[in-house]
Amino acid sequence: MRDEPIGELLPPARLMLTPGPSCIDPRVYRAMMAPMVGHLDPWFMEMMTDVQILLRRVFQTDNRVTYPLSASGSGGIEAAVLNPLEAGDDAIVCVNGVFSERMAVIAERTPANIIRVEAPMGRTVDPEDVRRAAKGKKLKLIGLAHGETSTSVIQRLADYRKVADEFGALLVVDTVATLAGVPFGVDRDRVDICFSGSQKAISAPPGMSPMTVNAKAEEIIRARKTKVQSWYFDMQPAMNYWGKERLYHHTPPIPLIYALREALRCVLEEGLEARWERHAINQQALIAGVEAMGLELFVQNPADRLPTVTGVRIPEGVDDHNVRTQLLDEFNIEIAGGLGPVKGKIWRVGLMGYSSQRQNILLFLAAFEKVLLDQGFRVPSGAGVGAAVQSYRQPQREEVNVGK
Amino acid sequence: MRDEPIGELLPPARLMLTPGPSCIDPRVYRAMMAPMVGHLDPWFMEMMTDVQILLRRVFQTDNRVTYPLSASGSGGIEAAVLNPLEAGDDAIVCVNGVFSERMAVIAERTPANIIRVEAPMGRTVDPEDVRRAAKGKKLKLIGLAHGETSTSVIQRLADYRKVADEFGALLVVDTVATLAGVPFGVDRDRVDICFSGSQKAISAPPGMSPMTVNAKAEEIIRARKTKVQSWYFDMQPAMNYWGKERLYHHTPPIPLIYALREALRCVLEEGLEARWERHAINQQALIAGVEAMGLELFVQNPADRLPTVTGVRIPEGVDDHNVRTQLLDEFNIEIAGGLGPVKGKIWRVGLMGYSSQRQNILLFLAAFEKVLLDQGFRVPSGAGVGAAVQSYRQPQREEVNVGK
Repeated sequence: MRDEPIGELLPPARLMLTPGPSCIDPRVYRAMMAPMVGHLDPWFMEMMTDVQILLRRVFQTDNRVTYPLSASGSGGIEAAVLNPLEAGDDAIVCVNGVFSERMAVIAERTPANIIRVEAPMGRTVDPEDVRRAAKGKKLKLIGLAHGETSTSVIQRLADYRKVADEFGALLVVDTVATLAGVPFGVDRDRVDICFSGSQKAISAPPGMSPMTVNAKAEEIIRARKTKVQSWYFDMQPAMNYWGKERLYHHTPPIPLIYALREALRCVLEEGLEARWERHAINQQALIAGVEAMGLELFVQNPADRLPTVTGVRIPEGVDDHNVRTQLLDEFNIEIAGGLGPVKGKIWRVGLMGYSSQRQNILLFLAAFEKVLLDQGFRVPSGAGVGAAVQSYRQPQREEVNVGK
Repeated sequence: MRDEPIGELLPPARLMLTPGPSCIDPRVYRAMMAPMVGHLDPWFMEMMTDVQILLRRVFQTDNRVTYPLSASGSGGIEAAVLNPLEAGDDAIVCVNGVFSERMAVIAERTPANIIRVEAPMGRTVDPEDVRRAAKGKKLKLIGLAHGETSTSVIQRLADYRKVADEFGALLVVDTVATLAGVPFGVDRDRVDICFSGSQKAISAPPGMSPMTVNAKAEEIIRARKTKVQSWYFDMQPAMNYWGKERLYHHTPPIPLIYALREALRCVLEEGLEARWERHAINQQALIAGVEAMGLELFVQNPADRLPTVTGVRIPEGVDDHNVRTQLLDEFNIEIAGGLGPVKGKIWRVGLMGYSSQRQNILLFLAAFEKVLLDQGFRVPSGAGVGAAVQSYRQPQREEVNVGK
């Protein structure tokens, strides 16, 4: 053991333009600081109802079983797939990046038979491939990521819902990268089990995974013949704690629930449609900027581009690590590198929730120009910022599809 | 969906004298509010090292694998038992309350053969019973709760360590209710896998479970033939994120890590032995007070009494719920009721971490007198406070066993 004292906590003030955690509204910090009470305090139990009401509004659902899981989004994946799956089940997971692969990896730890249907990184999974893989099977579920954070790809849920209907399967959807940032509604899109993350477009701190389960999926979970292999992620006791009974299960991260509550209020005060539009408009400005700087987007097909995370190809001869380090050291701006197979090949710029603000895009493009020039990549002077400014001057409302 | 807006978050200011969460030092709140950074930010990764150093000092261990798990203490139980156990293993769990039973319940979800060795609530598990149950078995582990929060019982670790040594078994210990409040050291007490909770005697917010694993247990975990049945609680990727590699696993609850770091600094600034002594002295005052009021303790044997949580029998004719409700409504003081079989039979008064302060004990005893009188229980006037005051006037240092 080293003996020297560990000093005061003095973090740098970063602008987080990553695929999460996003920056946090000061009013969310303030709520997080509210006096803590016990998790069985009658006041707290009443407050849990508020959080559930807010979550239903943001998920756009009437599902009774709607609550924040005490875990990161990866915990949400685990709860979403462990609860419905038992031995003898067939399930398909659509894999087109690190997080959808994670869903497969987790599902493969159950005794169910998991079929991966894959697509190259940067692409969507072909629903025809899913249909072919499902043929002749009594399918329990189809799982996929709405937004694949690792590749900045969004998928059309209706296509997979259709296949799930054909085979009587549940649709399990990861909306970690999309909820509150991209047009989506659990009931409208007929998702059976859906989870998200607190630290993305909702802009609460990380540590909670909002979760919702419809009546059909709930019935399947309640009818299990075997116990869920994780006690912590077993939804039945969680449903009892977050249900009418408020039966003690585990001690939840109380300040994070306070923060989540406030962040959800912010989402609803802005309005879901206005928020979706904001994300779309800001991403258009970012894209205009990076393209004007001579950079290419990772996702070829514009319809497949995730509005909350933009993948940018790292140009030949430019060092990923040096660029990101200089952005941090010189401007306190964090963007993300690639994960898995695209590490070193792409940058990922997240514009999520509170981070998705005009001033952040302009500042980022300006700083990015400086850094790219220093790192030996030729950028037309002022081109990025200029293009973003032009983008903001366009009348956008007609052009942006907010999925109404 | 209800349509009315959900208002501002305005929690009451409670004094939490429960078995967790305990009250939080304002400097811990302040640290929690520090600017959030990304979980892969180089500054953050450096800061993770601080947290690990601090945790090693509080756990009193040199274990390389020492980190805070992103989950409540119950998640800690899950990680601690799921990782070492595989099909074909025999394991013993000592059950003497709700939380040690939880360890059994979780272990029983693994394919290993779990033997429960039970003791009545309010008692310790007899090491002879453990020895008998282990006879003839090649035992993988013995699991137990150092402090059983649900019954306010503490167990002598040396007794179980001895049995574990005889059978070559790992010792897995739940120190959720004891770490930083009760004499204990992972290396000194030769615990192989140990976990705790952030919201008890450490007095950080709930949501993290400090975890430490010694080299022997680490080797066993690394040599597994099958995958751990929970991805989230699989220690191998967690070891990589918290190890030298800092390989991304999941997004941890960053503000809770900030808060935990500060709370651990508070623990070490006070000093472990001084802190243990404070907990012991304050509990003595509490016990003197409640006994002088004519109440009885739940745990008969003084040596078995957990210093952080005091179980008090609810007197005949007094209503548990009414007393706790009046304490909350009239004095903003929360104490806990019993869990499971002792629900309605005992109160549990927690004096943990920042909650364990003289002024809190005196205030609680005064308020308790008022409430008990109102609820029809005759209390000699001022007896509780008087006895506690006397207790504080005794020279205590010689009497308190801080396990040096």
